[in-house]
Amino acid sequence: MQKLPSKLVQEAVDQMASLPGIGRKTALRLVLSLLQRNEEEVGRFAQAFQKMREEICFCSVCHNISDRPVCMICLDNNRNKKQICVVEDVRDVMAIESTGQYKGVYHVLGGLISPMNGTGPGDLHITTLIDRISNHDIDEIILALSATMEGDTTNFYLFRKLKDANVEISTLARGVSVGDELEYTDEITLGRSILNRTPFEMSMNR
Amino acid sequence: MQKLPSKLVQEAVDQMASLPGIGRKTALRLVLSLLQRNEEEVGRFAQAFQKMREEICFCSVCHNISDRPVCMICLDNNRNKKQICVVEDVRDVMAIESTGQYKGVYHVLGGLISPMNGTGPGDLHITTLIDRISNHDIDEIILALSATMEGDTTNFYLFRKLKDANVEISTLARGVSVGDELEYTDEITLGRSILNRTPFEMSMNR
Repeated sequence: MQKLPSKLVQEAVDQMASLPGIGRKTALRLVLSLLQRNEEEVGRFAQAFQKMREEICFCSVCHNISDRPVCMICLDNNRNKKQICVVEDVRDVMAIESTGQYKGVYHVLGGLISPMNGTGPGDLHITTLIDRISNHDIDEIILALSATMEGDTTNFYLFRKLKDANVEISTLARGVSVGDELEYTDEITLGRSILNRTPFEMSMNR
Repeated sequence: MQKLPSKLVQEAVDQMASLPGIGRKTALRLVLSLLQRNEEEVGRFAQAFQKMREEICFCSVCHNISDRPVCMICLDNNRNKKQICVVEDVRDVMAIESTGQYKGVYHVLGGLISPMNGTGPGDLHITTLIDRISNHDIDEIILALSATMEGDTTNFYLFRKLKDANVEISTLARGVSVGDELEYTDEITLGRSILNRTPFEMSMNR
């Protein structure tokens, strides 16, 4: 790395490069672009993160981010509290919310079981999920995790933990993505989508 | 874009996405990674940028970034003040400094002439360069600009402005990069490197 002309720039580049996926060259480019702005603008930039961190907390029920102790989704009386959708992180809540197809509540695990990254079941919000199921009248748990090895491992772990509780457990449907050409779909997905074929009338519900 | 669960997160994502080359998806990922840190860490993150912007200024002689009115390079008495290397921006100063081959001073233009981006000669620090040459005893101007169309345009503009001043004007040597295979070198570079061939003894000076 090139020598930086000032300790202050060095510190700013170090902080920028501490973000995931931002290397030192990119960090320097971003920091220099901030130097082109006036003090007030950079102040607003910096304070946005500080204010967010100070005021945002995590929902005590579902671990979603929230600006109050219990999040808007958990407080919403129009939502079905007996249906819990288990997701990896906050972005998955946003993704599912933006479909407008789900009217239950969520439980954010905060990660997936991944021995490679050193994340075990104890690092995830699994105990609070089991408490929710024992202490409340829950009908269904939807495991909405990524279709990766880590997602499948976590699915399997949760299924074993929850199978004795009196709840229905489902996972997201696996199949051909809308808009995908069959020719380029991988054989495992295609195989599963033939095995789990749906009645034609159901496929018309968009 | 997905609906964000809070105005504070929205504001932080907007600010992050205002950086060049950072899209809204990446901005959200970075902001959520900040939410995983504690308040003190995020405070340090935010203050690094604010402090840098408040305390860093630009050198009144060469426009390099500096923590005092005149930068360390311009103040250094061991450097040859009669040799000015003209560069596009601060990163070029760092790149040339890291070679350890240059002992003169710099002049940072702050950009290149680019009609496509609406940058004209008036937007660059060209007047101050001409003032430096008229008011001080300068021997040589080295035009160290990128080998792009904008760089060549700016080179040509500066050459026309400076050719009547009593200074030697040079540009960076164009040629085959060290480590490049001849077969894959473009024909313009290869052509120039044959025309501007150097005596064998000089090529041994690393």
